[in-house]
Amino acid sequence: MKNVPLKGVIAYPITPFDALEKVDIPLFKKQVERLVVSGSDAIAPLGSTGVLPYLSDEEKEAVAEAAIQQVAGRVPTLLGVSNLTTERTVYHARFAEAAGATALMIIPMSYWKLSDEEIFRHYDKVAAAVSIPIMAYNNPATSGIDMSPALLRRLLQIPNVTMIKESTGDIQRMHLLRKTLGEEVAFYNGSNPLALAAFAAGASGWCTAAPNLIPELNNALYKAVLSGDLDKSRQVFYRQSELLQFIVAKGLPRAVQAGLNLLGEEGGYLRSPLMPLTAQEISELERILSLVHSPAPLDQSFIS
Amino acid sequence: MKNVPLKGVIAYPITPFDALEKVDIPLFKKQVERLVVSGSDAIAPLGSTGVLPYLSDEEKEAVAEAAIQQVAGRVPTLLGVSNLTTERTVYHARFAEAAGATALMIIPMSYWKLSDEEIFRHYDKVAAAVSIPIMAYNNPATSGIDMSPALLRRLLQIPNVTMIKESTGDIQRMHLLRKTLGEEVAFYNGSNPLALAAFAAGASGWCTAAPNLIPELNNALYKAVLSGDLDKSRQVFYRQSELLQFIVAKGLPRAVQAGLNLLGEEGGYLRSPLMPLTAQEISELERILSLVHSPAPLDQSFIS
Amino acid sequence: MKNVPLKGVIAYPITPFDALEKVDIPLFKKQVERLVVSGSDAIAPLGSTGVLPYLSDEEKEAVAEAAIQQVAGRVPTLLGVSNLTTERTVYHARFAEAAGATALMIIPMSYWKLSDEEIFRHYDKVAAAVSIPIMAYNNPATSGIDMSPALLRRLLQIPNVTMIKESTGDIQRMHLLRKTLGEEVAFYNGSNPLALAAFAAGASGWCTAAPNLIPELNNALYKAVLSGDLDKSRQVFYRQSELLQFIVAKGLPRAVQAGLNLLGEEGGYLRSPLMPLTAQEISELERILSLVHSPAPLDQSFIS
Amino acid sequence: MKNVPLKGVIAYPITPFDALEKVDIPLFKKQVERLVVSGSDAIAPLGSTGVLPYLSDEEKEAVAEAAIQQVAGRVPTLLGVSNLTTERTVYHARFAEAAGATALMIIPMSYWKLSDEEIFRHYDKVAAAVSIPIMAYNNPATSGIDMSPALLRRLLQIPNVTMIKESTGDIQRMHLLRKTLGEEVAFYNGSNPLALAAFAAGASGWCTAAPNLIPELNNALYKAVLSGDLDKSRQVFYRQSELLQFIVAKGLPRAVQAGLNLLGEEGGYLRSPLMPLTAQEISELERILSLVHSPAPLDQSFIS
Repeated sequence: MKNVPLKGVIAYPITPFDALEKVDIPLFKKQVERLVVSGSDAIAPLGSTGVLPYLSDEEKEAVAEAAIQQVAGRVPTLLGVSNLTTERTVYHARFAEAAGATALMIIPMSYWKLSDEEIFRHYDKVAAAVSIPIMAYNNPATSGIDMSPALLRRLLQIPNVTMIKESTGDIQRMHLLRKTLGEEVAFYNGSNPLALAAFAAGASGWCTAAPNLIPELNNALYKAVLSGDLDKSRQVFYRQSELLQFIVAKGLPRAVQAGLNLLGEEGGYLRSPLMPLTAQEISELERILSLVHSPAPLDQSFIS
Repeated sequence: MKNVPLKGVIAYPITPFDALEKVDIPLFKKQVERLVVSGSDAIAPLGSTGVLPYLSDEEKEAVAEAAIQQVAGRVPTLLGVSNLTTERTVYHARFAEAAGATALMIIPMSYWKLSDEEIFRHYDKVAAAVSIPIMAYNNPATSGIDMSPALLRRLLQIPNVTMIKESTGDIQRMHLLRKTLGEEVAFYNGSNPLALAAFAAGASGWCTAAPNLIPELNNALYKAVLSGDLDKSRQVFYRQSELLQFIVAKGLPRAVQAGLNLLGEEGGYLRSPLMPLTAQEISELERILSLVHSPAPLDQSFIS
Repeated sequence: MKNVPLKGVIAYPITPFDALEKVDIPLFKKQVERLVVSGSDAIAPLGSTGVLPYLSDEEKEAVAEAAIQQVAGRVPTLLGVSNLTTERTVYHARFAEAAGATALMIIPMSYWKLSDEEIFRHYDKVAAAVSIPIMAYNNPATSGIDMSPALLRRLLQIPNVTMIKESTGDIQRMHLLRKTLGEEVAFYNGSNPLALAAFAAGASGWCTAAPNLIPELNNALYKAVLSGDLDKSRQVFYRQSELLQFIVAKGLPRAVQAGLNLLGEEGGYLRSPLMPLTAQEISELERILSLVHSPAPLDQSFIS
Repeated sequence: MKNVPLKGVIAYPITPFDALEKVDIPLFKKQVERLVVSGSDAIAPLGSTGVLPYLSDEEKEAVAEAAIQQVAGRVPTLLGVSNLTTERTVYHARFAEAAGATALMIIPMSYWKLSDEEIFRHYDKVAAAVSIPIMAYNNPATSGIDMSPALLRRLLQIPNVTMIKESTGDIQRMHLLRKTLGEEVAFYNGSNPLALAAFAAGASGWCTAAPNLIPELNNALYKAVLSGDLDKSRQVFYRQSELLQFIVAKGLPRAVQAGLNLLGEEGGYLRSPLMPLTAQEISELERILSLVHSPAPLDQSFIS
């Protein structure tokens, strides 16, 4: 695999706001720092978790620069630059490259369903505008488009489209991807509840917001998988599976914000119309977090 | 029904672009004029057909002003002001009211799925910022959210939310809406292929891009329905049903642009990543349009 | 339309059981008699409502003979003879023809999904074994197979396959059917909640279990449609729409049995695993039936 | 886990027919023998693969007796006794127990959707009629009912319902099952393409028709999983994944029959309406089988 700078646990920070719903850059930097020092293999700002589509162009630029400055090259930075129009996607891709991003993540956002040809041209124009590698991201639940394995294979013909992130939540799709794209193509899992199954299927990495709350368990799963130990992988996965399902069910930005507060960290504010979890949901999250963190301690060899 | 200024055929213009993908305001005005003079009961710019989400704030304002200026009060103007964030939706709602819009159309756009409470607060804040009536628009295929009849009923408690536009494409939903909301609540059909069934079910109006291409048939259907004539309604509907299915299947902005060109009007350009219909699709549209326009002439009493 | 002996309200009796879960033929005959004298345009035993798949071969034969004997030619009899295997379907088709059925209804039951070719051959073999006309019935919710309009058109090439019953619950499908099959082909609506929309779309008849409970309203809807009066059709439809939705939601045999008991008729027993409606469901049905039957009397001109 | 007599690769024979579409018992016995001697951990006749619903009562009994006689206790025998009515299910369950079956597999067949209460009573009555353990089988694609984890947990309260077979094809469901039912409950995977992911998730066994064609690879996967070796499990899985997808996509009885013929074994005939694979499908299967069987030989340590 050439031009593939990412593997392992790729951590997605939220974008925190202040009480007036302005982006809170200082808090964002603190949250990014926690992700780096807790052992994430890469940092991925301005994804769905980072509420990219809710930000103005200026805000996106400020977040991008703050992230790259804070990460400071300790791990790779994967920057989300998706936009409905091709022109704006090119604009943000160029900005990200100039700011020092390691790679770009692009989902084909759509209001009107795009044809395969429209999607291919979109990626092709953006990719031609930059030199760094691009991760094509398939997530029909948020984008409204389900890119077929055949289309993804076509996208990989674009020289710097080198990585695939798959979030349909269907493990059979990953099997098909690997069969269609070949073993040497790097694919990444973006569906938290599939973390074990995707690694078993051969995923190179796991794109996840969970390290905001339980980095040690996320990293332990990857380590167990790397060591090829199926039983330990399963044990570590089931320790975190309930939390993974919860944060997906409630929406990642809302769940991470609430979880940070429960852990004694600052979660900041959300931007309307997004609202905080309800009191009942927060209690449920507290229960899940306490189970994850406290009881039967994980075999220390997994946590390193 | 009070504060319900709309009924009949509510025509949706596209937003045309020039060769450099800039909004083409003079062409837009010509297209709006065609919709008015061909007998539409209202004009609705900046909807899905008008590629609202692909426009910058400045472009939205220019389109809104141009539309209101061109319509010049001859029929009501329904302006789309939907946005992912509440703050931007309020901003555009105020702009539209100041510019002279008759009413506002708002769909709860979402990237992260919104809870009922989040949706209610969103509408409540926007409605409180203006005095003109609001049409709440349900279209899960584009917004990613399916507002239940129960939620729509709740939205109608907000004083100036007075109209419901329903686009799930399921006629049973309209029956349920009417049962849930009561006979006196105005609901509008936004699913072109359901035009006949929705009018049969009691819809007050039909939100449609079809008048860009076949205004006489669209108006004739409404007239037949108004006269309570089921057989004539059916006859007029089947004359246009294939075109209605085509423009929905291909995407309204793309299909309308191609159709305008086929009719000898100017369709303008699309904004990337949207691409023109393929040659084969254009041939198919030409065939359908020729069938609609030429052969067995409609009973003249329907076209007036 | 030749060889099309059915139109209007086609009434589906249940198959009642006694306390030991044996088929109760005397009660079945009483229920059939009610359907005939209340004005149904045809009687259709051994459909889904008649729990065909839950009966032994001997029971099916007894029910078929009892129905034809009781109807005694006053209206046409449409007999269900569907079976998983072709051999058994042929067997029951021949039995039904010999017993005097007017026409046969056949759904392509499946455990394993059938290909179009398998379905065509199945109908072809059965049709070749009898001389009476056959109604091909599409209902993916119960059969597990969704027959496309293209396949249905192919089935109509078999000489005595002359009628289509469509129960997907999607009105757009009926529009497509009419466009695909041509105006002269008889299609029937098997989805109760679509009764108004399907008649508006041009359906020749309505296959329904509702006449077991509200025959006067079912007949009034057909009469209003025949007279081409859209407003009256709508009024009559909304009088019965809640009941139509209820009996579909709860399962036709269970809902009809409970409703007959509420109306002071004998509903008989169900065969396990089917169980009676719960007390709460029965109360709900009672409320709906009382609304349908009592208040604002229908304009008498519709009830005849 | 008590009263759980099954684990590993549970092999499903087809039910072969002769040229006149009669059940071919001698050929069936040969096919069962192949499954036993090739190393299957259990034999499961009269499942979906064995076209249970297409057989008469007498045929089911003949197949059950032949299977038990042929297996002769070398491995456990899991017998399918599902039926639409409770009475017939009880009948076949008693027959199977008397004939010597080790355990019973029961799917809640449905024509009319069953409520949770109806399903529970159904299992409860059948289980009370026998003493051997029962596997509750969830497969909405064939049964039309999706049993929730909560319902499955309730079924496990019935003393001799001790095993769960899950075939929704969604790996997240298995995670939820294990969380809902507890680690000590035996669950089995019935979705061939999920074989690796289900074992990774902790499934006790794999219910599969694949051993009719590739027993050595199926057994090798289970062995690799048992040894806890993730990399070897993945390697062995991807060797067979294309075949697993093919046999599911084409229907297990049709695909197995064709595959047996390609392998030089006797596949027998199918019962109408099921038809043999097309020539093109057979070529495709031949290609897949040749890839599976010939090239890069598997590391011998997996095949034993």
